[in-house]
Amino acid sequence: MNRAAIVEKIVSTKVSKGLKWSDIARDVGLSKEWVTAACLGQMPLAAEHAKTIGEIFGLSEEERKWLQIPPYRGALPTAVPSDPTIYRFYELVSVYGTTFKELIHEEFGDGIMSAIDFKMDMTREPDPNGDRVNIVMSGKFLSYKTY
Amino acid sequence: MNRAAIVEKIVSTKVSKGLKWSDIARDVGLSKEWVTAACLGQMPLAAEHAKTIGEIFGLSEEERKWLQIPPYRGALPTAVPSDPTIYRFYELVSVYGTTFKELIHEEFGDGIMSAIDFKMDMTREPDPNGDRVNIVMSGKFLSYKTY
Amino acid sequence: MNRAAIVEKIVSTKVSKGLKWSDIARDVGLSKEWVTAACLGQMPLAAEHAKTIGEIFGLSEEERKWLQIPPYRGALPTAVPSDPTIYRFYELVSVYGTTFKELIHEEFGDGIMSAIDFKMDMTREPDPNGDRVNIVMSGKFLSYKTY
Amino acid sequence: MNRAAIVEKIVSTKVSKGLKWSDIARDVGLSKEWVTAACLGQMPLAAEHAKTIGEIFGLSEEERKWLQIPPYRGALPTAVPSDPTIYRFYELVSVYGTTFKELIHEEFGDGIMSAIDFKMDMTREPDPNGDRVNIVMSGKFLSYKTY
Amino acid sequence: MNRAAIVEKIVSTKVSKGLKWSDIARDVGLSKEWVTAACLGQMPLAAEHAKTIGEIFGLSEEERKWLQIPPYRGALPTAVPSDPTIYRFYELVSVYGTTFKELIHEEFGDGIMSAIDFKMDMTREPDPNGDRVNIVMSGKFLSYKTY
Amino acid sequence: MNRAAIVEKIVSTKVSKGLKWSDIARDVGLSKEWVTAACLGQMPLAAEHAKTIGEIFGLSEEERKWLQIPPYRGALPTAVPSDPTIYRFYELVSVYGTTFKELIHEEFGDGIMSAIDFKMDMTREPDPNGDRVNIVMSGKFLSYKTY
Amino acid sequence: MNRAAIVEKIVSTKVSKGLKWSDIARDVGLSKEWVTAACLGQMPLAAEHAKTIGEIFGLSEEERKWLQIPPYRGALPTAVPSDPTIYRFYELVSVYGTTFKELIHEEFGDGIMSAIDFKMDMTREPDPNGDRVNIVMSGKFLSYKTY
Amino acid sequence: MNRAAIVEKIVSTKVSKGLKWSDIARDVGLSKEWVTAACLGQMPLAAEHAKTIGEIFGLSEEERKWLQIPPYRGALPTAVPSDPTIYRFYELVSVYGTTFKELIHEEFGDGIMSAIDFKMDMTREPDPNGDRVNIVMSGKFLSYKTY
Amino acid sequence: MNRAAIVEKIVSTKVSKGLKWSDIARDVGLSKEWVTAACLGQMPLAAEHAKTIGEIFGLSEEERKWLQIPPYRGALPTAVPSDPTIYRFYELVSVYGTTFKELIHEEFGDGIMSAIDFKMDMTREPDPNGDRVNIVMSGKFLSYKTY
Amino acid sequence: MNRAAIVEKIVSTKVSKGLKWSDIARDVGLSKEWVTAACLGQMPLAAEHAKTIGEIFGLSEEERKWLQIPPYRGALPTAVPSDPTIYRFYELVSVYGTTFKELIHEEFGDGIMSAIDFKMDMTREPDPNGDRVNIVMSGKFLSYKTY
Repeated sequence: MNRAAIVEKIVSTKVSKGLKWSDIARDVGLSKEWVTAACLGQMPLAAEHAKTIGEIFGLSEEERKWLQIPPYRGALPTAVPSDPTIYRFYELVSVYGTTFKELIHEEFGDGIMSAIDFKMDMTREPDPNGDRVNIVMSGKFLSYKTY
Repeated sequence: MNRAAIVEKIVSTKVSKGLKWSDIARDVGLSKEWVTAACLGQMPLAAEHAKTIGEIFGLSEEERKWLQIPPYRGALPTAVPSDPTIYRFYELVSVYGTTFKELIHEEFGDGIMSAIDFKMDMTREPDPNGDRVNIVMSGKFLSYKTY
Repeated sequence: MNRAAIVEKIVSTKVSKGLKWSDIARDVGLSKEWVTAACLGQMPLAAEHAKTIGEIFGLSEEERKWLQIPPYRGALPTAVPSDPTIYRFYELVSVYGTTFKELIHEEFGDGIMSAIDFKMDMTREPDPNGDRVNIVMSGKFLSYKTY
Repeated sequence: MNRAAIVEKIVSTKVSKGLKWSDIARDVGLSKEWVTAACLGQMPLAAEHAKTIGEIFGLSEEERKWLQIPPYRGALPTAVPSDPTIYRFYELVSVYGTTFKELIHEEFGDGIMSAIDFKMDMTREPDPNGDRVNIVMSGKFLSYKTY
Repeated sequence: MNRAAIVEKIVSTKVSKGLKWSDIARDVGLSKEWVTAACLGQMPLAAEHAKTIGEIFGLSEEERKWLQIPPYRGALPTAVPSDPTIYRFYELVSVYGTTFKELIHEEFGDGIMSAIDFKMDMTREPDPNGDRVNIVMSGKFLSYKTY
Repeated sequence: MNRAAIVEKIVSTKVSKGLKWSDIARDVGLSKEWVTAACLGQMPLAAEHAKTIGEIFGLSEEERKWLQIPPYRGALPTAVPSDPTIYRFYELVSVYGTTFKELIHEEFGDGIMSAIDFKMDMTREPDPNGDRVNIVMSGKFLSYKTY
Repeated sequence: MNRAAIVEKIVSTKVSKGLKWSDIARDVGLSKEWVTAACLGQMPLAAEHAKTIGEIFGLSEEERKWLQIPPYRGALPTAVPSDPTIYRFYELVSVYGTTFKELIHEEFGDGIMSAIDFKMDMTREPDPNGDRVNIVMSGKFLSYKTY
Repeated sequence: MNRAAIVEKIVSTKVSKGLKWSDIARDVGLSKEWVTAACLGQMPLAAEHAKTIGEIFGLSEEERKWLQIPPYRGALPTAVPSDPTIYRFYELVSVYGTTFKELIHEEFGDGIMSAIDFKMDMTREPDPNGDRVNIVMSGKFLSYKTY
Repeated sequence: MNRAAIVEKIVSTKVSKGLKWSDIARDVGLSKEWVTAACLGQMPLAAEHAKTIGEIFGLSEEERKWLQIPPYRGALPTAVPSDPTIYRFYELVSVYGTTFKELIHEEFGDGIMSAIDFKMDMTREPDPNGDRVNIVMSGKFLSYKTY
Repeated sequence: MNRAAIVEKIVSTKVSKGLKWSDIARDVGLSKEWVTAACLGQMPLAAEHAKTIGEIFGLSEEERKWLQIPPYRGALPTAVPSDPTIYRFYELVSVYGTTFKELIHEEFGDGIMSAIDFKMDMTREPDPNGDRVNIVMSGKFLSYKTY
């Protein structure tokens, strides 16, 4: 048994039962972003949340324990993602990466936006020219300190 | 003469004059995100904006014309960026990429968030535990249509 | 169960039954390009189309549901395709890519041809010097907008 | 002297003079696709066409000779192109490549669409929902023959 | 069932029965080069040839059908082959590739030697200093044509 | 001074003088394949041949000495060549590589065709369906010996 | 002017003057690790430290400003470093990476050791069996938090 | 049976039993760093240690023998690790690699810190600003010697 | 059945029986280097040697036949080996590769050391400062000959 | 000024003066292997040796200082070397790498052959079947020790 097998089981069950991530997240009591990432093997779950997920997807006791272990992260099969929906985010990094860097340094000085102390929220913004995907990212600024 | 030389000239002048992107953007009359990206060779500028940039950085007439040409985009020297400030965004794609995909599809159906009809805003959010970098991305949803 | 297994089942059944994509597409009521892509795991199908495909290939209820999920796209095992029939298209991108870019920008300004709001049609053009493959691609132009 | 230097000279002159590829092509008397590719170092020109190009761009006799030599083709700095306008074509190969292959084989048997005996035409198709980029590709079918 | 499994079955049977490709080719009535390539999953076979191969290797009806499908070509697990016997050919391309290009262009003008309308013959040339491998390659010249 | 500069000088002179490799080879008194490879920096020349080449291309004494040094071989800028004329040879290795291997082993036993004790001859074969490129390769067989 | 040129100037001056990093660091008043990294283009310096460095290496006013800009980090020319002294550290990551991960998670829970809020100290430990390199790394633990 | 299967069995058992590496290491009588690395397939164990591990994880006699064999080392699925916890160490090599090199050479002369005659200790350092991960590495210096 | 499975069987049996390569080689009557390489799937065995190996490892008749087939060589899972014991040899090529080349050319002229007509012997050299690994490689020199 | 420029100067002078590495090494008083590696930028030289080299090649005082600095090692432009003379050594690692590993472990236990405490000697072995390249490598065995 390994985590990849559990992720496949969750995804397969979700397809056959026709579940939605936002409903699952509401049952768990966490954001839909975190719960989806956890079910896809990118985040661990606390015991109580693993219990809820386990009930929804019919997981064994051992499988629920696996969900609580910090996973080996990284969800993409190639360094440059081939899926167009995901690629667009990679493209943003490729085109705007140096811009992110310049503006963070200008506003905060030398350092980074944490990808660990981080949260995000994805919402739908109605727009007469076609609805928009809105993503709000919020990460703590971490500064390099001389020593 | 080529674009890379102009970008180097702009960046070098910015360093020696001690300019700030947000001030430059205010003079140009566009968002700081767009102006920074344009000065780093990732976006073209309209003639009037190129004129302002040209005056700030002391560019020749021919150099101002170059600024108006759509550039060959892609600012990173390697497929996986080595700079930590930029890498963190790549990490988000690597860890959350499949989550982005699932949630976009759940909310909108099959399609992508456009990286072309797109805008973003980066701001500083004061926080007693350490200020945070906030990034709001907004991209039009584009759906696959059967034919 | 996962999508790759369903694609293999479809392809294997097509071989053993000697079916043709164009006949399948006519039964489904969509273009042969879309239906082939969908059966190869690159496009999802609406419920009614998945039903038809499911009948043709003897798929279970759960397998039909899988066909309706947006797939993780990208059909090639390597970044540069090794198969000669597919490689020729990659070669066109390699040789003509900068030409595509120049001519799109000259005609439309800065932006891209969408690969999402996109359709194509492949036909056989009789020619005394040897028949030709004709491919008509049509994608919406999406322009970068300053902000 | 080498070809890359001549391409840079042509592109730089085009920017400073504000020329258009379609006008240049009309003067040369060939399609805009071929002429653009040739000026970008992907195709050679016949002597008379090189003469016209040489006059437009102020090239020396030796530079005009270079334009007549078959170039080392391949215009992209990386195997997966980073520029979004060009990337979309790569994405089409990645997503539709196996579909191209299946449909070519179904219609013609085993073989390829030539990327050598090949021509293409890019036009603008007005559309109330936003104009479209139309590309017609035509390549001779070449079949594998047993021996 | 997929083609890779059939190739493994053929190769495994060849080992256990101690067959030779040249004998198999004589039975099939095609060149040993084509038959070997086909059995290794690089070329399809006509129905009658697949029948003979099927009998030699004890293949089922469905497996024989698979042999008639144009395969996804490309037999090497890495871009640079690790096997010394195969690597030497890659080395020839690496060392002599630009020579091939120059001499083809000098003799024929701009274009390529087809790898599709192509045949080859490998023979043993006795030589007192050690026998030699002789390979005759013959591919149709395809010329680029302006348009 | 380094070899790459000398190769560029030779190629550039060849273009401006309109020379042909076959004529140069005749003057040198070696095959056109060897002379072309040597001029492109892939093979060294004996002193007397370097003298002739030096006179044809107007090389200094030091440059002629460079031509006699075994070069760092490998003429391609990428592992998979992007130029179509050269790529076709790489494709042959990719598609037929395992076939080469099988047939060499069947005829000779375990070993390789030398790419060092090797010669080749490229000729034009007239053909009513379009002339053909013929390449005869001859390499000594080298066998693995147990020890 | 760009940073790489300044780094080369610093390194070149250090060689010709025979300076030592530890002496330079003492003059600057920071750790030798930070100062070396800054002089190699991996860390920015505060104005006063840049002044000292500027005096030691004879840098112009503009060059001193460059030293204060956060650099594009990443000092290695290849993803896997070829230099043996540096490779050994990469080897430690390759061999012990999963061990680091397990032990950090066991002690702290899910999260990372910061490479930003980080310091290190390298010292020589005398040892009769051969002196040892001792490196003490200290990075703040950053924990993932659910949201 | 192979080592990867044993590693998976150990990890899976650890999850289901809720064991801790530090407890296991205390039972074995070695450092937690070594024992963890060994259980993850990166280090071999002496017979008596393998016996203890075997009892803890319920391994067969043959599986215990496998644990005593030097493994093929390298625990990461990609050259650049995707997991954030591990990536931070790779980032340190990327950013500080040339600093490590300079300071080792300055202190010791030309040579390397051994990654073989090497030990390390990872501890938790309480800190009011957030606890810190402390890693002490100690490797023998090995010097190049002329010959 | 394929060769990889046989290699795994041999290695697994060696572990469980606690055999040594040098003993096996003595039974076979060949050098330990050749026999080890053969058992690891890099060299074929003559029928009589395969018989001995088959008896030692309990291989079936078909498995013994597989051992006599020239294998697809190349034992490393990545282009740059991750295992430290093997990496050190790669490092020698990386650091000393151009030295090997220069000295071979100086002594022999242009050509290579054969890796086919090659043998080697690995022995232990006692040394009071720590025993040494001694490897003697002997390969026939093959010279390029003009044609 | 940087080391690459000095290496190019040395190599270029060697060509124009027609020097031999073995003569240079005799003058320096070190092995030809070490001196060649040093002149190619892979090893540093002691002051007195740098003095001799400087006189032979007409190097300035500053250039001689550079020769004494430990270089960034790694002489190959690509991970897999394209030059046939060097590639053969890479091939040995690829084919025999796991054999080296097995035999070293069998003879010495777990550990590596040092590539630092290492020396080698390359000689010509006369042989009626063609002279042979003999290389004797001697590296200290370094063993992993538990802790």
